[in-house]
Amino acid sequence: MPVPDPLPDPLSDPLSDRPLPALTGPVLVVGAGLVGTSVALALVEAGVEVLLSDHHPENVRTASGLGAGRSAESRPGAEIGLVVVAVPPDALGGVVAEALQRHPRAVVTDVGSVKTQPLLEVTAADRDVVHRYVGSHPMAGSERSGPLAATSTLFQGRPWAITPHASADPDAVETVEALVALCGGTPVWLTPEEHDRAVARTSHVPHLVSALVAGRLADAPEQHLALTGQGVRDVTRVAGGDPALYGQIVSGNATAVVELLGEVRADLDRLIAAVGGGDRGTLVDLLDHGVAGTRAIPAKHGGPPRAMQSVWVSVPDHPGELARLFADAVASGVNIEDIRIDHDPGRPTGRVELVVDATRAEHLLGSLEEREWVTHR
Amino acid sequence: MPVPDPLPDPLSDPLSDRPLPALTGPVLVVGAGLVGTSVALALVEAGVEVLLSDHHPENVRTASGLGAGRSAESRPGAEIGLVVVAVPPDALGGVVAEALQRHPRAVVTDVGSVKTQPLLEVTAADRDVVHRYVGSHPMAGSERSGPLAATSTLFQGRPWAITPHASADPDAVETVEALVALCGGTPVWLTPEEHDRAVARTSHVPHLVSALVAGRLADAPEQHLALTGQGVRDVTRVAGGDPALYGQIVSGNATAVVELLGEVRADLDRLIAAVGGGDRGTLVDLLDHGVAGTRAIPAKHGGPPRAMQSVWVSVPDHPGELARLFADAVASGVNIEDIRIDHDPGRPTGRVELVVDATRAEHLLGSLEEREWVTHR
Repeated sequence: MPVPDPLPDPLSDPLSDRPLPALTGPVLVVGAGLVGTSVALALVEAGVEVLLSDHHPENVRTASGLGAGRSAESRPGAEIGLVVVAVPPDALGGVVAEALQRHPRAVVTDVGSVKTQPLLEVTAADRDVVHRYVGSHPMAGSERSGPLAATSTLFQGRPWAITPHASADPDAVETVEALVALCGGTPVWLTPEEHDRAVARTSHVPHLVSALVAGRLADAPEQHLALTGQGVRDVTRVAGGDPALYGQIVSGNATAVVELLGEVRADLDRLIAAVGGGDRGTLVDLLDHGVAGTRAIPAKHGGPPRAMQSVWVSVPDHPGELARLFADAVASGVNIEDIRIDHDPGRPTGRVELVVDATRAEHLLGSLEEREWVTHR
Repeated sequence: MPVPDPLPDPLSDPLSDRPLPALTGPVLVVGAGLVGTSVALALVEAGVEVLLSDHHPENVRTASGLGAGRSAESRPGAEIGLVVVAVPPDALGGVVAEALQRHPRAVVTDVGSVKTQPLLEVTAADRDVVHRYVGSHPMAGSERSGPLAATSTLFQGRPWAITPHASADPDAVETVEALVALCGGTPVWLTPEEHDRAVARTSHVPHLVSALVAGRLADAPEQHLALTGQGVRDVTRVAGGDPALYGQIVSGNATAVVELLGEVRADLDRLIAAVGGGDRGTLVDLLDHGVAGTRAIPAKHGGPPRAMQSVWVSVPDHPGELARLFADAVASGVNIEDIRIDHDPGRPTGRVELVVDATRAEHLLGSLEEREWVTHR
């Protein structure tokens, strides 16, 4: 069947205005790691029956112990309405295809980081059942792994991509929309191809390039590293992620990643030529383009980016001062959007950066100064 | 005169064990921006007479008003012992050369981001006076600019590179060491060439590569950006810096920057070939090398990197909860090394990441759970 045309506006949330099918369960969650178990917990909280399976039986036992449902083996004949596949990227296509065969009346979705490659595998396995498969991808929880890290609130307010392909059954799309709604996610509709281009841009390529910068530090003489500041810490933070997992993710999105890496290489060549040849104009153009990119990132609270401003405060390095600062910041009535602590080697006082709406920065500064904090204007 | 050979160990701090010359003043600070005015404030606090000059007279008036010394014009015949040049990178070499001519008995230093290029300019201007010039570079305070952002504590505990060249007078080196000591900086001795390679690696190349990643976001369709997460925010944060200033800095360090960008390009070519060709082994090798780089970064408190662990806590999005969390974290006795707030679009509760020593994470979790915080294990 054709996909509804046009796709809903990816930046609005019409779920609340449309009736969605009830998820009556049982829902089968395949893969009881962080994401699978978190989905299961959210469903159980919503009163949906959940069955669990995992290549590692101890994950099912752990997840069950957390109240995330019970083993699928305990109900061998259950009529499954929805299967949620939450397995590592390499295994995704195969497990989805198997689920479509095993559960001939079920809708099947997955929560993997890449959408085109598994769809190709599923289609190759059996073109006649692929209309019951609708991929999805919640943007949540990659920092930790395993069922013990799971929580029913993992997805609340997080973007959750829903990626119907051209042959997807509209009822199957609605079932996945109902899943996203129950988990509290914010749906973002994209085709599988657009999704993969989007995550290449916002996640995979930043990760890979961060790893290349971090690689220069691995090669560095020790005294070079003595000059390390906050900037390079930020740039390289994501490069600390698990290479085996990111190897799978990136390999599964090779086409989109290679295309964007090609753009990075073209810019890098221009950059090298500009710096080496003393072409200041091109260098500044590339830096200007970067500034435009940082401004294009949506604000944390969604909606158009708001202008933020940082307020720096000196905080003596002894217990309780940080808590006192926060109490005073809260008393000012200004919402703190982000915080950074900067206490470099040997520094007797730390500096704390409070990021607030630019229109509120002056009020916060005044309020903290009244309470005798040393600010840096 | 020859530089002391060998240079002091760049990672130790022997200043406290060596008698340093007193800075008797007057010290002339040329350039009353953030860094120059902060140096001036630190010197005045230490009882040293400071004279100020700046291309923009209003900066001198502002800095004087903050108690950072008085205008150099008010004491035209003063015998200057030390000149600290704190002007933008493009102007650095010329201003240092002029200061050496104008103040024939003064030691001259600067606080610029690049060290080889100004030294070449100073040497070309007058080889006979360059022994009185010793460059330096405090790692502090690039987020804001102008004298109003200055503070006498800006340099406390921060690395401050001292970069004597082969002809530098040892007495001049000691005078600069005394300056660093008075400002509370942690000296790191490097040759000018090593310094420039170090900052290319730890600052300039990360900045440039961050700008290339951010540039991809400037080109992005809006629905791609809906999937933006914390990782790409971190990678691209520094790319928001002033293109005109970074253009000057990078241009002044072209040799070291181009060399390292060449290494990045070689790795990028390997990466593109590996991802495009399905060579998982090479891809994972490059990611592994990145992980090694993130582990090579010194801990914020100096010394060998310590293993850190993140503790995630759900925090209801209403006033006072963040302050209460900090009070409870402080009560646990565990030192909070870093904080991150994660409250994505529409999320009713935020999650706060508290970064602590890995050996203390379990204690903090238990302590917060006792106080009824929802943690994510």
